Amino acid sequence: MKIALVGIGKIAVDQHVPAIAGSTDWDLAATVSRHGKVDGIEAFTDLGAMLDARSDIRVVSLCLPPVPRFDYAMQALKAGRHVMLEKPPGATIAECHALEAAARRAGLSIYATWHSRHADMVAAAKEWLAGTALRALTVTWKEDVRRWHPGQAWIWEPGGLGVFDPGINALSIVTEILPDDIHVSEAELDIPENCQTPIGARIAFHHPGGARIGAVFDWRQDGDQTWEIEAQTDVGTLRLCEGGAVMEVDGIRTGDAAPLDGEYPRLYARMAQLVRKGEIDMDLRPMTLATDALALGRRIPTDTFHD
Amino acid sequence: MKIALVGIGKIAVDQHVPAIAGSTDWDLAATVSRHGKVDGIEAFTDLGAMLDARSDIRVVSLCLPPVPRFDYAMQALKAGRHVMLEKPPGATIAECHALEAAARRAGLSIYATWHSRHADMVAAAKEWLAGTALRALTVTWKEDVRRWHPGQAWIWEPGGLGVFDPGINALSIVTEILPDDIHVSEAELDIPENCQTPIGARIAFHHPGGARIGAVFDWRQDGDQTWEIEAQTDVGTLRLCEGGAVMEVDGIRTGDAAPLDGEYPRLYARMAQLVRKGEIDMDLRPMTLATDALALGRRIPTDTFHD
Repeated sequence: MKIALVGIGKIAVDQHVPAIAGSTDWDLAATVSRHGKVDGIEAFTDLGAMLDARSDIRVVSLCLPPVPRFDYAMQALKAGRHVMLEKPPGATIAECHALEAAARRAGLSIYATWHSRHADMVAAAKEWLAGTALRALTVTWKEDVRRWHPGQAWIWEPGGLGVFDPGINALSIVTEILPDDIHVSEAELDIPENCQTPIGARIAFHHPGGARIGAVFDWRQDGDQTWEIEAQTDVGTLRLCEGGAVMEVDGIRTGDAAPLDGEYPRLYARMAQLVRKGEIDMDLRPMTLATDALALGRRIPTDTFHD
Repeated sequence: MKIALVGIGKIAVDQHVPAIAGSTDWDLAATVSRHGKVDGIEAFTDLGAMLDARSDIRVVSLCLPPVPRFDYAMQALKAGRHVMLEKPPGATIAECHALEAAARRAGLSIYATWHSRHADMVAAAKEWLAGTALRALTVTWKEDVRRWHPGQAWIWEPGGLGVFDPGINALSIVTEILPDDIHVSEAELDIPENCQTPIGARIAFHHPGGARIGAVFDWRQDGDQTWEIEAQTDVGTLRLCEGGAVMEVDGIRTGDAAPLDGEYPRLYARMAQLVRKGEIDMDLRPMTLATDALALGRRIPTDTFHD
């Protein structure tokens, strides 16, 4: 199936292009980007021009930042194309509902991807937790923003999510592996004085079974980077490390990796499946938790940030 | 049907108690409140004690502030009671989903009330707009917080909504009367330096038909209080004034008032209907728009607020 990639920035070049190139399902047939291109692939600078010129391309994958994404997604749906969305699927909950409703009306597939859910050991962790009683869960997501988001000014602007841009990856794993839904009960957000979005966050969640659930997100981490989820249960302690790539039970590495090699190849395999079956996958739970935390959180001014 | 009222504050005394007293459907059988009471009605200070003692009361109406409401609502649902929620139905979107899921599992009714939707002319305005093409819609919601919320410190704390506490009433009307769903595209929030929630807000919305939609909420209004929605259409201009009590088309008062007298009597009539039919009414669209605006909005520091 032919696919067009819209928004040729860091994530497209690092992840989407190789995942499409390595897939037997997909053929990268065009790109749309103001500045970026992919060698040997027809390049457009305007989505409307691509949709008009290439009626043979039935699927569009959007990897732009969240704020402009809605207009592009709606334009593609109105032109009868299936749509795949980088995370988060939009800048607001209501616009994601509108996209889902539009896709449903038109009989098109739409996929809100959460790449971290497809890290190697997430499926194994979900299976392991299914048979346990949860007592506590702690998310520690600490990285250096200067290393992972150099010069990306939009992350500090309204809708840019701040530290919830990586944090939502953790939330996507937690909502995937826990059998029960959780919700934000309290949050503290550290907001640099020259920014609109948090550089750090501490969140407490309500769990229906009374488990203590908390998350710490921090973008000011020098040295070792930490992306870990630890779940204490009645039968032992599960640790998902390295963003879901490694699983330990009571300190011992275990679990079988999900099939296929890598998060983005798994996303594109799933999109192929959705298009073939005419289905929609629009799980907004990670985004709802992030939006709730941003709306409800206590904002604490902190040091000015300079890239 | 016997009903218990939980949270005996200003809104309970001003609106809920008279609406229940004037209804042929309902009998106020108990109250639960730390401090408040209603003359002649059995008073509890603890919800659990009331639920244990009064198994004859099958319906609970909650008028506490949004942050503590979830725990009370879930406790009532777990005890097999139908639940009616003052607006907004909770402090987060995710907790409202959890309440709806719990009610559904237990076969109970739950009703997220939006009292302003039951203002006299809202139904007539909805009917009038149904046959038109919308060009623009402007919400102007300006009131004096000192007059309407004296001493209510919780409105300035996380989850207290600030000026979205009245503003969500406007959003509840807009989402009711417009045939199409809208979403927040941009927002500016004026945050007093000693508060966590906005005292003023300017919001731009996306409309699927391209109509220009904006809202101005302000809690710093001296003199005349304004709660107006103006809709410009292909066949004329509709104005809903006084919070939905008065409707004008091209400057001329028109429309027939909804049946029953008053917003809260209509809410309690609707709740009686839901319980009899075993139905759920949990429309979260007003809250989604408010949460999206609070999460996405650009925060602008403004003067310290003193009650």
